[in-house]
Amino acid sequence: MFKNFLSVKDVSNMDLLIQQAMMYKENRHTRATLGAGKKIGLLFFNPSMRTRLSTQIAASNLGMESIVYNIDKEGWKMEFVESAVMNGDAVEHIKDAAPVLGQYFDILGIRTFPGLTDREADYQETLLHYFKKYTGIPIISMESATVHPLQSLADILTIEEQLIHNPLAKKPKVVLTWAPHIKPLPQCVVNSFSQWVNAWGKSDFVITHPPGFELEKGFTEGAHITVNQKEALEDADFVYVKNWSSYENYGSMATGDMSEWMLTLDKLKATNNAKVMHCLPVRRNVELSDEVLDSNHSLVTQQAGNRVWSAQAVLSSMLENIL
Amino acid sequence: MFKNFLSVKDVSNMDLLIQQAMMYKENRHTRATLGAGKKIGLLFFNPSMRTRLSTQIAASNLGMESIVYNIDKEGWKMEFVESAVMNGDAVEHIKDAAPVLGQYFDILGIRTFPGLTDREADYQETLLHYFKKYTGIPIISMESATVHPLQSLADILTIEEQLIHNPLAKKPKVVLTWAPHIKPLPQCVVNSFSQWVNAWGKSDFVITHPPGFELEKGFTEGAHITVNQKEALEDADFVYVKNWSSYENYGSMATGDMSEWMLTLDKLKATNNAKVMHCLPVRRNVELSDEVLDSNHSLVTQQAGNRVWSAQAVLSSMLENIL
Amino acid sequence: MFKNFLSVKDVSNMDLLIQQAMMYKENRHTRATLGAGKKIGLLFFNPSMRTRLSTQIAASNLGMESIVYNIDKEGWKMEFVESAVMNGDAVEHIKDAAPVLGQYFDILGIRTFPGLTDREADYQETLLHYFKKYTGIPIISMESATVHPLQSLADILTIEEQLIHNPLAKKPKVVLTWAPHIKPLPQCVVNSFSQWVNAWGKSDFVITHPPGFELEKGFTEGAHITVNQKEALEDADFVYVKNWSSYENYGSMATGDMSEWMLTLDKLKATNNAKVMHCLPVRRNVELSDEVLDSNHSLVTQQAGNRVWSAQAVLSSMLENIL
Repeated sequence: MFKNFLSVKDVSNMDLLIQQAMMYKENRHTRATLGAGKKIGLLFFNPSMRTRLSTQIAASNLGMESIVYNIDKEGWKMEFVESAVMNGDAVEHIKDAAPVLGQYFDILGIRTFPGLTDREADYQETLLHYFKKYTGIPIISMESATVHPLQSLADILTIEEQLIHNPLAKKPKVVLTWAPHIKPLPQCVVNSFSQWVNAWGKSDFVITHPPGFELEKGFTEGAHITVNQKEALEDADFVYVKNWSSYENYGSMATGDMSEWMLTLDKLKATNNAKVMHCLPVRRNVELSDEVLDSNHSLVTQQAGNRVWSAQAVLSSMLENIL
Repeated sequence: MFKNFLSVKDVSNMDLLIQQAMMYKENRHTRATLGAGKKIGLLFFNPSMRTRLSTQIAASNLGMESIVYNIDKEGWKMEFVESAVMNGDAVEHIKDAAPVLGQYFDILGIRTFPGLTDREADYQETLLHYFKKYTGIPIISMESATVHPLQSLADILTIEEQLIHNPLAKKPKVVLTWAPHIKPLPQCVVNSFSQWVNAWGKSDFVITHPPGFELEKGFTEGAHITVNQKEALEDADFVYVKNWSSYENYGSMATGDMSEWMLTLDKLKATNNAKVMHCLPVRRNVELSDEVLDSNHSLVTQQAGNRVWSAQAVLSSMLENIL
Repeated sequence: MFKNFLSVKDVSNMDLLIQQAMMYKENRHTRATLGAGKKIGLLFFNPSMRTRLSTQIAASNLGMESIVYNIDKEGWKMEFVESAVMNGDAVEHIKDAAPVLGQYFDILGIRTFPGLTDREADYQETLLHYFKKYTGIPIISMESATVHPLQSLADILTIEEQLIHNPLAKKPKVVLTWAPHIKPLPQCVVNSFSQWVNAWGKSDFVITHPPGFELEKGFTEGAHITVNQKEALEDADFVYVKNWSSYENYGSMATGDMSEWMLTLDKLKATNNAKVMHCLPVRRNVELSDEVLDSNHSLVTQQAGNRVWSAQAVLSSMLENIL
């Protein structure tokens, strides 16, 4: 179905992808030999738990071998600048490393965070771009500087499951709300969620955040955006909670006490008994209160579990394309 | 046979477990597909060599896939305090991480050392307790704050093998002796060994250590305890050598020159040509002299080798329970 | 064909080994079950990318399971001194660790760099020697203090492939040239390349380097050695570029500006349209210019790709010997 999986733009048929994920959730071994003899390299420039484990398990369910390489810990610093005179601390140029990995593996997974200092570099997805250019094999994003498509697919899958089991009479209202945090976080989860919800097209989508935390317009186009969280939450069916740092004042955090942006049970009263989502890890009682996370509102565990089936659907589509 | 494997208390039939371990030692591939399609997550909060490798190999021998996750290096700090406001350095609460891992794996192995500062917290096995509570899948201890049951099973197996090949006319005398060390070590290996030897019940069990190094009574009940190493070694058939820090003055080391507690060939003369055991890694010429380790007395290599078959017996019992 | 693979001296028939590597390159799954039920431990005292990944992939292609253990990060410091009183920072003696690993695995791969301070210790290959002595199972070098045979086999394979596709009327002239670098590097890649090219015996072999960078004679015997790079490059068919630190003034770097030793397109004009090789990672525009690496002269990607087939040929020979 697709060669690379770097963002929602690679997905021509989201419904089919979600159906496949549901099929794997029903029976993980449906296509247990599809990836036999194939190898996926999982390259981490940054730490990961859910993404790493779920991708490994998804590959294994398809009979594919995964090899994890924590390049930040097991390897050395990469150079990404063209024509660089490499007399610094970078040991190898992406132009040399990427084609080697392309010979070793059938698919390459890459995880890399943004630096959060140079917006243009981050939003150009330099690293991913170079891997795509020089590796010569299909690439799957395990979270990049600006998006996290495997997470977003699991997010949409989780919403769809909910709608199957508890159908609504109307279009669901999906709200993405900014939450407080103690560190500046990337925008990738929320950029990606916005992009996927828009592409999915089956909801009324609202984004709410403090002034100055507008996301890059290309990702949010079509969403209703408001700085009034209360208004946003009204009649919401799904509330996605997540912190992000500023895109405008790139990488900066909110100043002052932002604790009133934390979602509480009290705030949920105004919703349509909304389900609450978060990509995890979550800072309890900072981003989201215990009372919400430990209530029936929370979908976070189910959502994280769905990472396996999403990854399996994506990998099986990529494998079909290789065979 | 058992759901979790956290201590000897989970084992209803030790003889059967040892027989199974012997069967796997005879033919490692006896049940090569028992774990087919099943996955075990191996979660390390602390370093490991024998435990990690032997558990991976045991899983593989049963056709089960293992995935290692060094959470101390590849992940982030976990929060274990209920209702914590997570504005510190802990990134994720065990309440959120554990159920996710419970969805990803069929069995979860956990290794975690004691802090050796807060005795009550260590002896409540807080971390293991939370994983058991929130993971929802069978858990196998790969060494915890107070016990190391996979080690102890291998220890008993090693003694049993010895008795089969060199039967004794009397009950074997098993001696656990404290040894010097340069760092304060956990009590888990010796707590666990004591508990297993007592549950095994086929020996005269003696523990010897300097004053102030008494172990928690619940583990040693039934053993003869003495501060006189010489008396303890008399006619011993097996001598288990190991350092541990104080339980009473929790986590503290011995003060002064303790080198006379090191086991030597000379001291072994008083024994019944005793076999010498140690869980490894061992500080040569501090805990145990070269002359002992390099002599026929030593069982340490065989003992470490038996870790594979012990783990395989435990995992196969757990798998039977899942199927 | 051989038990251990520690240097070219273990190889009785290089031609056969290269033919097997070519066979695997043609069809990686030719002997997909040769290693079924067998396990190789890959023990890293130092970082690795190509060697680690290619060895894992080679093992997998033969149906053999590989388990990576980064002892420098996941384990603890080893003691290698006989009779040491282990009251320092080394936690375990090689005499205890090695036989345990020997019980766990069918083959053991080891990677260890030289210290570059004590020449005698490095050139005695102390660590490898102890593993060979105490492990009791076949050992494969994944780069040691003085040689890197898996790299060298891939190097010869790459030259042979080239000669098949572009036969020469004469014996090929193979030149090994020293290159500038910003750090003192081991001699192992170039020692090993020299040793293999000499054992291969199908070329005119020339080594060129600045004065003071003579390699240990045992490795280079038979090669023509010159400090005149220009003379060396004349009519060359293959140019192997690599930095190394001094053997004479052990571990020291070149002083002063050595940039004129960097290979350029201009210098290649004097060659017979030579192919350029490097083991990677390469410091671009320090060791080798972009213009060379990005030209048709470069074989570096192909060379790194050949690491898989070389490792597979070696492992299959070792497996045959075990069965």
